[in-house]
Amino acid sequence: MQLYGGIEAGGTKFVCAVAEQPDSDFIEKTSFPTTTPQETLKRSIEFFKQYQLKALGVGSFGPVDLDVNSPTYGYIMATPKAGWVNTDLLGPLRSALHVPIGFDTDVNGAALAEYATAKSAASESLVYFTVGTGIGGGVVIGGQPVHGWTHPEVGHIPVKRHPEDTFAGSCPYHKDCLEGMASGPSLQARWGAPADSFPADHPAWEFESYYLAQAVSTVAYVVSPHRVILGGGVMHQAQLLPAIRQKLLQLLNRYLASPATPEAMQTFVTAPHLGDDAGIRGALELGARALQAVSIPKV
Amino acid sequence: MQLYGGIEAGGTKFVCAVAEQPDSDFIEKTSFPTTTPQETLKRSIEFFKQYQLKALGVGSFGPVDLDVNSPTYGYIMATPKAGWVNTDLLGPLRSALHVPIGFDTDVNGAALAEYATAKSAASESLVYFTVGTGIGGGVVIGGQPVHGWTHPEVGHIPVKRHPEDTFAGSCPYHKDCLEGMASGPSLQARWGAPADSFPADHPAWEFESYYLAQAVSTVAYVVSPHRVILGGGVMHQAQLLPAIRQKLLQLLNRYLASPATPEAMQTFVTAPHLGDDAGIRGALELGARALQAVSIPKV
Repeated sequence: MQLYGGIEAGGTKFVCAVAEQPDSDFIEKTSFPTTTPQETLKRSIEFFKQYQLKALGVGSFGPVDLDVNSPTYGYIMATPKAGWVNTDLLGPLRSALHVPIGFDTDVNGAALAEYATAKSAASESLVYFTVGTGIGGGVVIGGQPVHGWTHPEVGHIPVKRHPEDTFAGSCPYHKDCLEGMASGPSLQARWGAPADSFPADHPAWEFESYYLAQAVSTVAYVVSPHRVILGGGVMHQAQLLPAIRQKLLQLLNRYLASPATPEAMQTFVTAPHLGDDAGIRGALELGARALQAVSIPKV
Repeated sequence: MQLYGGIEAGGTKFVCAVAEQPDSDFIEKTSFPTTTPQETLKRSIEFFKQYQLKALGVGSFGPVDLDVNSPTYGYIMATPKAGWVNTDLLGPLRSALHVPIGFDTDVNGAALAEYATAKSAASESLVYFTVGTGIGGGVVIGGQPVHGWTHPEVGHIPVKRHPEDTFAGSCPYHKDCLEGMASGPSLQARWGAPADSFPADHPAWEFESYYLAQAVSTVAYVVSPHRVILGGGVMHQAQLLPAIRQKLLQLLNRYLASPATPEAMQTFVTAPHLGDDAGIRGALELGARALQAVSIPKV
């Protein structure tokens, strides 16, 4: 049986999986630490060599080159991840596996998987945030992941500072951008302990929900998505999503071209339907789309 | 000869035009003040009745209902413009003119016209800002105007306050959002005189370029457009665009997945190629697209 393969290529770990369909049960799913490119890609290839693939999808940490006309298409570019700067990710996979390969950012992949799962016109535009070691954002408009100059980098939007927050910010480029104020490491740097050790009433969550609500309102006003999804390790804090919805209502202040009611909030801002599988499901979906692209002749 | 008609429906004036093609010389272009809906639509209809139209495009002030399945499709919704709340804009035009009608926000229309003029893959995603009485933003991704929950309202994104700016902000919903801090009326309220009376070295421009640079960086990180266009009355100040580019470079701080070089800046942030005609050209383009949509059977 021919299978779809997917790689969720993260800076900490690679997740590899095979399945009959992008949304069917995994035949096998595995993960291993992201070490050197050579070793990590070798392990990925060995995993897929056990199966007969029809296509592969790769959702990667970035920044990545998504321009199919670029000589460095499929590369990880100037990443902070040591040893991975200017790494040809797709080349070795292509040479070893000989199948169509779909490629995008991990977060665009996750956004796409959430879109594919919802399969409704009311989710054809959505923004997916992952809030963890960094903050990433994927954007799907009209059912397609958004690319342009490069790919969305929603984690680096400027934010209005919480009036009581004196933390300088942890982003090496922008100091107090969204990622600099609300990522896991920024929480740790501000409070001197890892965020998952904080109780639900820790003052950290007041700031955190303030910044994330602001980020949701920003993307709501820029692309008017049907849905905004908040995933990632920091969002495992159960009290965070309701606090974000409440702050977002205050921020939107019943502005009339926005989902500015408590009822609308429940479907507008949600956890990922796919939970922590959004990334790997997105990679499988990228594989399915790559196969479709080579199967259907252009009109 | 059958012509395209276009209406740029603004809160202050309506611009109506007819042309053979969306980008060919206007056969006639006229404008008149926006008074009551009845009177203003009557004048528009009388203008177009002089010609044989093949399609009409309408780019309107908002918020508007763009959902073709909604009973209020083609309406202006809860606008601050007195007398225009819940106004059926398309109904009277449809009954009188009997041609396919394309409909979108004025700024999505303007963004579309700029895209259609560029006709290059390097402009297939762009954001168009108009900075004047309010701040509006249109977004085109992959050559299509962006809709979702509703339409973009980029003027209402939150902004980080300039450290020396103590102005409370003029937005009735959000106080110190982008529109509240950087629209023409907010400049007037902050400095006590109309912005077009300020000299080029007035301190207003330091704040103005700070907020607009920030807005450009926000949309750059959210949708990674190929180009951001800044139009509208306030942008007639010639010193503003170079100041915005300079501040934007500082803000991006050579972040590597952004157009963070002085060279890239020249093509990334620009005035509208179409100048003050972007809105009416956009309306004509919406008309052309409406005709195409009814002419090509769905596969």
